[in-house]
Parts: sequence; C-alpha cells; structure tokens
Amino acid sequence: IETLRQDYIRTAQAKGAGMIQPSFATMLCFVETDARLSAQTADLLLGVCVKRSFDRISVDGQLSTNDTAILIASGESGVAVEPESESERRFGEALDMLLRRLALQIVRDGEGAVRVGRVVVRGGHLPNVERAARAVANSPLVKTALHGGDANWGRVAQAVGMAIPDSAPLPLDIAIEGQQVCVAGQAIGYDDAAMGKRLQGSEIEYVIGLPGDGCETEVFFSDLGHEYIRINAEYTT
Amino acid sequence: IETLRQDYIRTAQAKGAGMIQPSFATMLCFVETDARLSAQTADLLLGVCVKRSFDRISVDGQLSTNDTAILIASGESGVAVEPESESERRFGEALDMLLRRLALQIVRDGEGAVRVGRVVVRGGHLPNVERAARAVANSPLVKTALHGGDANWGRVAQAVGMAIPDSAPLPLDIAIEGQQVCVAGQAIGYDDAAMGKRLQGSEIEYVIGLPGDGCETEVFFSDLGHEYIRINAEYTT
Repeated sequence: IETLRQDYIRTAQAKGAGMIQPSFATMLCFVETDARLSAQTADLLLGVCVKRSFDRISVDGQLSTNDTAILIASGESGVAVEPESESERRFGEALDMLLRRLALQIVRDGEGAVRVGRVVVRGGHLPNVERAARAVANSPLVKTALHGGDANWGRVAQAVGMAIPDSAPLPLDIAIEGQQVCVAGQAIGYDDAAMGKRLQGSEIEYVIGLPGDGCETEVFFSDLGHEYIRINAEYTT
Repeated sequence: IETLRQDYIRTAQAKGAGMIQPSFATMLCFVETDARLSAQTADLLLGVCVKRSFDRISVDGQLSTNDTAILIASGESGVAVEPESESERRFGEALDMLLRRLALQIVRDGEGAVRVGRVVVRGGHLPNVERAARAVANSPLVKTALHGGDANWGRVAQAVGMAIPDSAPLPLDIAIEGQQVCVAGQAIGYDDAAMGKRLQGSEIEYVIGLPGDGCETEVFFSDLGHEYIRINAEYTT
C-alpha cells in the first residue's frame, strides 16, 4: 500500500505476482482519490499512466485474464481536477509516479525474484524497439543470468537478434549498469571484477542501442531462479 | 549416434541442448549416407524432413545463430535415389524417421529436462494453430507444471488464449495423455489419481482442439526444472 501526495491520491494497492506481463495479467490495482474529477478525465489519465507502468513490466511473460486497474474518485476533498488544466497535469504526474512505483513493486515481488532488470531499448523503429525489449525481458537465458549475477551480454544480443528477423549482422550497442560491453556489434573489454560487483545490486539496467534514433521503450522484469520453479512446479490445481 | 536402415543412411549425429527452438538454434546435425543422390534431391528431402523434425522442437524457446543440419551423400554404396521415384520416397521416409528421432533426443537432452511434452494443436486457422502450439511449448508455467507432474490445464488454456488475441471466450478442447479435461472451454471432471499416475511418464501428450478443422501442428518441448536454472544461472562467459 502506497500513500503519496495526499492532496491528490488517498491510497492505492496492487497485487501481483505470477503470470505477469500485464496486457493484462493476474494483477489487481486499485487507486482511491478524494479529488473531484470527471469519468472522462479519470479514464484518460488512468489510460496514459497504465501504459507507462503496468504495460512496461513482466515477471514471466504470461498474460492472464483478469488484470484490472481501477481509479475511484470520491470527490470528497473538493479538490477539482479540470480537463486540460494545471490541476490535471499535476494529478496526472502524481498518478504516473504512483503507478510506476506499484508496477515496479510487482516485479520485485515476482515469484522467486531476487533482482529486477530494467531494459531500455533505443533506435529508429518502434516495432523493433518494443519487440527487442520484450524479448530480453522474457528470455529465460537473460533472466537466469540476472539471477546468477552474470553479465553474459551475448544472451542479450541473442534475444535482440531473435526479436528482429533478418537483421544479422546487427550493429547493436549494449551497456550494462553503465558499462559499455558491446559497440556496433563488437565486444568491448571491461573490468570483470567491477562488473561482477555491480551485478550484485537489486536493480540492473541494460541499455540497448539499435540503428537509427527517435524511438525508446523500457521493460522492467524479474529474474528467474529456483524459487520460481519451486512455486510453479509444486503448485497444483 | 543413430544407426538406421543401413541401406540408406550410414550414421547421423545431432547435438543440443540449450538455446533450442531451431529455426535454428545452437544445434548441429550431420547425416551421412552412402546412397547416390543429386544435390537437388538431398536439398529437397532434407528441407522437408527438417520442417517435420528440428522445426518442431523447443527446449527454451530461444533461437541461436549457428543451427546446422547437413546431409552428406558419398554415393559409395551405389544405391541410387532418383527424383520422384519409389527410391526417393523410401529414402525420404528413412531420413524423416531418423531426424524426428534425433530431434526428440535433443528435447530429452534439454538442459535439466526430466520429461518431454508433445503438444498437438488442431483447428481451422494455420497461424493460430502454430502460435498456440509454440505458446504452450514455451510457457514457463506449462513447463514447470510438466516438471512437477501436474495436469494444470488452466495454464495450457491461458497460453492458448495469450497466443490468439481477441479470441475470448474460446471454445477450446484439451486432452492430456488421452484424458479429456476441457470441452468447448468447459472443465470436465476426471480421476485425479489416474491422471497423476499418467503424468509421471517420460513423455506427456497435450492435444488441443480449436474451432474449425483442417490444420494441425505439433511441438515437442522440454520441461523447466531446477537443473535448467542451475546450469544457466551458474554459467558465466
């Protein structure tokens, strides 16, 4: 439960944490506000913020049937949120920050997760950027390397190559936790010990550059470890 | 190494067994024959047989860059394989049986695999049938359930639903090891104890029926267990 900017949002809850690649997955999110806003404004703001939060996460790449995000506005505080006004902008910002925090929390709570990956892909073609980010986030090889604290950027390159057919040779750039490891498809030497230390952190960032520019996307994802197997192999219906 | 129908194929080898969803993956296959056949005939037969064998398997849904299947014909036996003849049909059958056995062996040897799943999808639309089979074969939830020896057909239905957008409600049929568990989207009661016993086998068959008829495909896949995690989380480059 998050409490944030009390003037706008009262409380909010979100529930994960298996079968998560919302679009939507077994996920529930409720946001309560006492602000006064129209159904159209609530719908617009929630839609925009969901695209930037729950639509950008994956625990295991599996869609579910009952993902839900609900914004309830009582109007009791009397604080008005008017269309196309400063109040709408500020309410939107508060909602955006809140949903992104909740979404990231779901990834952290992912079944068996010990570490969160954030993959950012930049390049010239939107479908490719999106496909590449999803492929990295859902690759069992990247996810197990993340779990094991290993850079293994060859697996990142493999996932990107798999996502973009007929792209070989692909002059992609890869940086992990700020360390460039691949430039225009060529390996770059780096300090293994320093990298190993960085990869023990709780959130690891992968930045991938594809040819061209103008597009960018991100996906937050859980690692894949023994606990995911234990939970899902022992679970019976 | 398989030795089969010596008059046609001398020896054959295939190597897996991680990063496998050939199209192609880190897979090598060599087939040696002493039959005499033209390059065109070899190319044609190998192409057809690869589509029915290595193209139908998945260990972890990950494509690689160096999958290779090579058919080498020395002509030394003097046994001729002529285009559009009985000899071509018989050689093709031998090659087909051999490659399917090798492909299945790769799945059995999949990293950490203890059990093989075979998903068969039948229905009226080829892209849907193919997508559904791949989604089931690559679902970490289906793969962990297979590992745990649990029917959990809800995960099969979820994977199919995810693979075919805007299909809900989907009147699909599901049978596991010959036991119907779902008909036209509705659960069917069955004997849990008998099912549990069936699921301890080394190869489990899932048959899925989608609306319409005329198309059919199959994918063989490995389960997902602790050993896959151990191998891939501990492996460093």
